[in-house]
Amino acid sequence: MKGNIVVGQSGGPTAVINSSVAGVFAAAKKLGVNKIYGMVHGIEGFLDEQMIDLGEYLNDETGIEMLKRTPSAFLGSCRFKMPKIEGHEDVYEKIFQIMEKHDIECLFYAGGNDSMDTVKMLSDYAAAHNKPQRFMGVPKTIDNDLPITDHCPGYGSAAKYIATSIKEIIRDNESFGAKKPTVCIVEIMGRHAGWLTAAAALAKGDDCTGCDAIYLPEKDFDIDAFMAKVKELAATRSSVVIAVSEGVHLADGRFVCELAAGDKAVDAFGHKQLSGTAAYLANLVAAETGLKTRAIEFSTLQRAATHLASLTDINEAFQVGYDAVLAAEEGKTGMMITLDRNGDAPYQCGTSAYDIHAIANVERPVPAEWITEDGCGLNEGYEKYARPLIMGELTPLFVNGLPRHLVRK
Amino acid sequence: MKGNIVVGQSGGPTAVINSSVAGVFAAAKKLGVNKIYGMVHGIEGFLDEQMIDLGEYLNDETGIEMLKRTPSAFLGSCRFKMPKIEGHEDVYEKIFQIMEKHDIECLFYAGGNDSMDTVKMLSDYAAAHNKPQRFMGVPKTIDNDLPITDHCPGYGSAAKYIATSIKEIIRDNESFGAKKPTVCIVEIMGRHAGWLTAAAALAKGDDCTGCDAIYLPEKDFDIDAFMAKVKELAATRSSVVIAVSEGVHLADGRFVCELAAGDKAVDAFGHKQLSGTAAYLANLVAAETGLKTRAIEFSTLQRAATHLASLTDINEAFQVGYDAVLAAEEGKTGMMITLDRNGDAPYQCGTSAYDIHAIANVERPVPAEWITEDGCGLNEGYEKYARPLIMGELTPLFVNGLPRHLVRK
Repeated sequence: MKGNIVVGQSGGPTAVINSSVAGVFAAAKKLGVNKIYGMVHGIEGFLDEQMIDLGEYLNDETGIEMLKRTPSAFLGSCRFKMPKIEGHEDVYEKIFQIMEKHDIECLFYAGGNDSMDTVKMLSDYAAAHNKPQRFMGVPKTIDNDLPITDHCPGYGSAAKYIATSIKEIIRDNESFGAKKPTVCIVEIMGRHAGWLTAAAALAKGDDCTGCDAIYLPEKDFDIDAFMAKVKELAATRSSVVIAVSEGVHLADGRFVCELAAGDKAVDAFGHKQLSGTAAYLANLVAAETGLKTRAIEFSTLQRAATHLASLTDINEAFQVGYDAVLAAEEGKTGMMITLDRNGDAPYQCGTSAYDIHAIANVERPVPAEWITEDGCGLNEGYEKYARPLIMGELTPLFVNGLPRHLVRK
Repeated sequence: MKGNIVVGQSGGPTAVINSSVAGVFAAAKKLGVNKIYGMVHGIEGFLDEQMIDLGEYLNDETGIEMLKRTPSAFLGSCRFKMPKIEGHEDVYEKIFQIMEKHDIECLFYAGGNDSMDTVKMLSDYAAAHNKPQRFMGVPKTIDNDLPITDHCPGYGSAAKYIATSIKEIIRDNESFGAKKPTVCIVEIMGRHAGWLTAAAALAKGDDCTGCDAIYLPEKDFDIDAFMAKVKELAATRSSVVIAVSEGVHLADGRFVCELAAGDKAVDAFGHKQLSGTAAYLANLVAAETGLKTRAIEFSTLQRAATHLASLTDINEAFQVGYDAVLAAEEGKTGMMITLDRNGDAPYQCGTSAYDIHAIANVERPVPAEWITEDGCGLNEGYEKYARPLIMGELTPLFVNGLPRHLVRK
């Protein structure tokens, strides 16, 4: 590659999105690229020419190792959606002007569905206007809902965090083992796809009975059936732990969390409660059964817990960044790097570059055949798919008792 | 020791309460004690003669190492409070009968304030009735609110989890760095003492700006002052992260979370919301400022995250269990083992045995001189006290991608 490159991060952060930046940097450095820029706060910051020279942070191997151990977006992220081209040519032209000014030949963008749309729009514009610049997508999302790719970097680490925390919660909930169980309801991210919630199923093993029920948004949620299930579980167990997706919804499409914000559920100031699905269901169970309940939300912890990241995930996040640069070097543009599973025993995964038009704005749900017939569990199909993704660890560098992160100056 | 012993766990679990059981076992084994029993679900289960033989689990070093890596109460816990002696002699007699039946010479009880009351009551009863059995308390509580002892096993690990998670939350919250900050409010356990919430202060370091404000229950909470502080922070920062204790309360004594459950805050079923302090304050900030807010509760994760336990804490939890046995061997009874700090540079900590009457039912708050003048931060006095307690790690044994625990058959 003769010119410079720039890499950006976009959308909700993950535990390993920085490993993809490390991968882009490592490949570009190997190819002898002169300047490797990082856009600060994604394409939104790039439009203001906010960039850093990644060489200032990563030119020795320690920098790259620290970046792999840093959660969230080292470069800063954004939720900027490219406007449609017609009537907004100035926005597109500005991006190409900035690229030309800094002799940037190729732009790499790590993100999920919306971010892949940015790659698509920019590469389409380049094609339509005979611009030489190239644009490559680097997959990233804890939601794991990008199509074509076997899975998305970021998912394995979120799944490892979720399964580990669920095990710890079950252990805690079991400890009182009273005559009457405590019903603990754990809310997990994923509004439209249940991949993250499914990861609660991985807690089960020789040392853990696992979740007692798992509800994904792929199936309609029936409150009566849920309540019957809870009562059945509570009658026979000394601990009940249930995982629900924040996106569970009734057959009529209403989210359960919308019920929580019903007319009567206003706070002292008259505005709707923002309380979530788990809190709503826990209140419901407490009211109907008199049992002690507890609602837990993993919130942003599940996408930021790099201290418990999956080494497989870190390596694959690095790889998709690395291979995006190699693909661009071959002249490719308007594509995203996909992870292609080649085998399960042992697990093997390669990469390829795929047309971004088939990926942008498409969401992939959990396959129906992996959900148990009763609608509240995952079967061995999911286990086989997901277990390899959480394998391995990368020990944090602990300084003064806490994991150390790499930060921008 | 000629007879057998029994050890029990009581109250809210911690990440390291099992290390205390390991310590009791190791010392008793060294002294050649024949049977080392564990009571299942504390004194409540003991009254039903629910016991296991710890030797079946711990007779090799692998068992002890696995126990140290297991969160929550391996033996099961309880929240059973001993009745007053007068009129309930039968309960006391039953305990001594079970001890006699199994030739149990000494009972060790790991727990917090209420559990130390159990030790006090039983040793008082033994003294009053010339019973030979001995009773020793082993300190344990994430709340860190036992008096006399410098700190409590369980606190260091909870503090390490809290500070690590706060760092990860700050990194996540900063990533969007938008023109308008997201205000993230994190609720931390501790209804009467702010020790756990104070641990949020440990997040600050060369790589982290730390929490923007920390509110402990040791100071009255003023909602107007809080709102002014949030507005001031939001005007100048691209991210605002605030830690609040679940126990913050107004000057008139009402908990902030009680305000959340005010008359109007009922759900669709007409019963009071169980929503917490952080959710209430986040809604308030959103309503008054229009800023995006997020409420996070660590819930039981902060007391169960053995995967991130402090090695210092694990070792000290082991030590207090071990030394309780040595003290009992010397004939001591009606005492709790305390941790006595001997130095800060380097940190050194010994133990001694202290009269349980000075400990049971006494709560120790965070010293006022460690809280900053503005009431929303901790100073270097706390840093000096707490930093040594979170030092060191004990790598979990990962099996199939998750930390493996030791469980009762």
